[in-house]
Amino acid sequence: MAHTIRAQFITSTHRHPNHQTSKTVVRRNPSIRTQTYPIYHCNLLSQFVTFLSMSASSPVKDSSVIRSSLIDPDGGPLVDLVVPESERALKRAEAESMPKVKLTKIDIEWVHVLSEGWANPLRGFMREEEYLQSLHFNCLRLSDGSFVNMSLPIVLAIGDKDKEAVGESSNVGLVRPNGDLVGILRSVQVYKHKKEERIARTWGTTAPGLPYVEEVITPAGNWLVGGDLEVLEPIKYNDGLDHYRLSPRELRKEFDRRQADAVFAFQLRNPVHNGHALLMNDTRRRLLEMGYKNPILLLHPLGGFTKADDVPLDVRMEQHSKVLEDGVLDPETTVVAIFPSPMHYAGPTEVQWHAKARINAGANFYIVGRDPAGMSHPTEKRDLYDPDHGKKVLSMAPGLEKLNILPFRMRTYARNGENPPDGFMCPGGWKVLVNYYESLQAEEAGQSPAVLSA
Amino acid sequence: MAHTIRAQFITSTHRHPNHQTSKTVVRRNPSIRTQTYPIYHCNLLSQFVTFLSMSASSPVKDSSVIRSSLIDPDGGPLVDLVVPESERALKRAEAESMPKVKLTKIDIEWVHVLSEGWANPLRGFMREEEYLQSLHFNCLRLSDGSFVNMSLPIVLAIGDKDKEAVGESSNVGLVRPNGDLVGILRSVQVYKHKKEERIARTWGTTAPGLPYVEEVITPAGNWLVGGDLEVLEPIKYNDGLDHYRLSPRELRKEFDRRQADAVFAFQLRNPVHNGHALLMNDTRRRLLEMGYKNPILLLHPLGGFTKADDVPLDVRMEQHSKVLEDGVLDPETTVVAIFPSPMHYAGPTEVQWHAKARINAGANFYIVGRDPAGMSHPTEKRDLYDPDHGKKVLSMAPGLEKLNILPFRMRTYARNGENPPDGFMCPGGWKVLVNYYESLQAEEAGQSPAVLSA
Repeated sequence: MAHTIRAQFITSTHRHPNHQTSKTVVRRNPSIRTQTYPIYHCNLLSQFVTFLSMSASSPVKDSSVIRSSLIDPDGGPLVDLVVPESERALKRAEAESMPKVKLTKIDIEWVHVLSEGWANPLRGFMREEEYLQSLHFNCLRLSDGSFVNMSLPIVLAIGDKDKEAVGESSNVGLVRPNGDLVGILRSVQVYKHKKEERIARTWGTTAPGLPYVEEVITPAGNWLVGGDLEVLEPIKYNDGLDHYRLSPRELRKEFDRRQADAVFAFQLRNPVHNGHALLMNDTRRRLLEMGYKNPILLLHPLGGFTKADDVPLDVRMEQHSKVLEDGVLDPETTVVAIFPSPMHYAGPTEVQWHAKARINAGANFYIVGRDPAGMSHPTEKRDLYDPDHGKKVLSMAPGLEKLNILPFRMRTYARNGENPPDGFMCPGGWKVLVNYYESLQAEEAGQSPAVLSA
Repeated sequence: MAHTIRAQFITSTHRHPNHQTSKTVVRRNPSIRTQTYPIYHCNLLSQFVTFLSMSASSPVKDSSVIRSSLIDPDGGPLVDLVVPESERALKRAEAESMPKVKLTKIDIEWVHVLSEGWANPLRGFMREEEYLQSLHFNCLRLSDGSFVNMSLPIVLAIGDKDKEAVGESSNVGLVRPNGDLVGILRSVQVYKHKKEERIARTWGTTAPGLPYVEEVITPAGNWLVGGDLEVLEPIKYNDGLDHYRLSPRELRKEFDRRQADAVFAFQLRNPVHNGHALLMNDTRRRLLEMGYKNPILLLHPLGGFTKADDVPLDVRMEQHSKVLEDGVLDPETTVVAIFPSPMHYAGPTEVQWHAKARINAGANFYIVGRDPAGMSHPTEKRDLYDPDHGKKVLSMAPGLEKLNILPFRMRTYARNGENPPDGFMCPGGWKVLVNYYESLQAEEAGQSPAVLSA
């Protein structure tokens, strides 16, 4: 109900003298022959901001209802797959007697993702029915006939020996590489891991050199095991950054505490330059103009697996904190947290996952740039994806109708050792990066070049 | 409304003493964690028939409403893109002045498909918005927020020269290889034909040797042109089989004439053997038991492009007509017609198209076998698709909720020159095939083996 009212409100708000067109678009109901039109532009740094799909969000007029303004989690109440403390000893004892599956570092990142409800309403690694829907439709049909978006298969691969060990067991214990128990997978289903098909349908190519494929899929087993997940303890990394790893539930609490009436999420896996910052600040200004009283930015760097030449997480987090210290982003209206997902570099398919997960953390606006989650084609001299497909696919994705997509284009800045243009990045943040690249060069001078593990 | 009532009726009908389980499944509302269960079996020829998804169809209790019992076309009234006779001269003159795009034989098959509404509600070759939805989601979102299934991109490829010729024109004339005008594409949009991505996402592989890829996509241009189609005259092939090419509208009329209260479609691109026939007859019997008064079989061989080693259409049609002449299938309750679509051999992706198109012809039951639209992997010694994925994907496909899926498994019969088992095929039908293969052998003895064109 609230969604309809909100859509109407924003439609009228957006009848603004600066409109390129008076035609407003409500994304819930795009005709298959209807073109989408930008509803507002701003020219900051040549960026191009378009508000599409104003279906799910609106200013709160009565501040007493601010708490209820956060968007609902995707597909029902937020799951929490971490076993309550009082039950852990019992479950741990139970798990000891189960066949064990050893998790990789990246499997554990997915356990983390699942355990906190980022993939709501998914309750564990996918069984075949979910896997096939994800692969073919990028969405799952729920029991009420509605769809939630689910563009990446979240699966656990096992080898022939593990499959034998699982045998006819319903339940499986999940352990770290050192044997420590992580959790339990219940009512498991083992099915074929058809890697070629998974890769082709997820990435739209089977060319060698896709980072996630080489790191995760190629070395993985030929079976997948799905089931309902129980995690014995919250996943921690003990890398000095765990305080940044807020769960969707914790983020929602923080947004409530700040009395947010809109949350706009910015996914990134690179340093924040001032172009980004200006865009984010401008987005807040626009949301205020639309009538929101307190839009909060979720600055949400991805913290899981990234390819070898991306800037490491600890450096990025230090850079981000400088950006807030220097006041380039306002700490009062910005929440910096780590998104624990691994990176697929799967372009239009992956950007849906990035957006969907943020709904679960309470974001109702999602900023999407050029070629999101894209990369160069691994074997040809071109972008792997059409740079515009990400935002187009996102704007049409089943299950994401309730999210407001904010596409923007931004001048491309060279990042290969050139001096940044004036105002590109705050000095404190820039120094962090310069130090990192200097240390990298010193390191490389002393050894052969790092090669992406396969 | 009617659907809900129907679902309830069938749910109760299916509480039968022979049930494997008392759990009935209504496909409209599958939980993402709900397994699907077979609701009834029959052991005819070791086949295994499962009625799933009993959402859209029910016996008609009042024979006076029989005409209204045909399932609605997908996504609204059936489109008819053939220009009325009175307007043809004018449109033809108009088209003469437009830039021209030359169609291949298979492009014309797609024009045929589109013109008669098999791809309802699609009104022409896909623009990018539809193409991307088809590729990523296998469905299109309509203006009312609902989805129609659309698993195959129905696109028209053009080369660089054609793109130049089209230039800024809104409208394009479509011509046969000999220059004859076929139709008009209006309000065109030209966009990139990213072949690798199209192939990977449609077939789940990019291995060389996929018949449709080699025949159609590899030689095609690097651009796609979408727009609204107008066809100047109904597409005819003048091969003596045009009387079999009934449009969805003509089929609906025929089903009405026969007072069908259920239509069950059987897609095939091979001869009808007696196993098939027994299955089809048994399906009719079961539908009668369910309370339908006059279920009609749509025996619906695919008539467009097939790979070189499939039995040619004219031979198949002769074989099918013998099957009816010999009374193996009852001509009173069977309609034989040609489905004009080309074949992709794209397994779980394509079977959705095969099913969806039959909704438009009035079928509310669709029979799906093992590995529908599948083939051997072109470069590896295995099936390209998991043989069970077709029916699983079909049962979960967005936009096909209203279709009743009838999966079956059938003993695999060797088709490589071995004698058929007793009762495998009626003698008249078998003779047609023997003659065909003898003629083929005679032909091959006189020339080098045929190679699939690339």
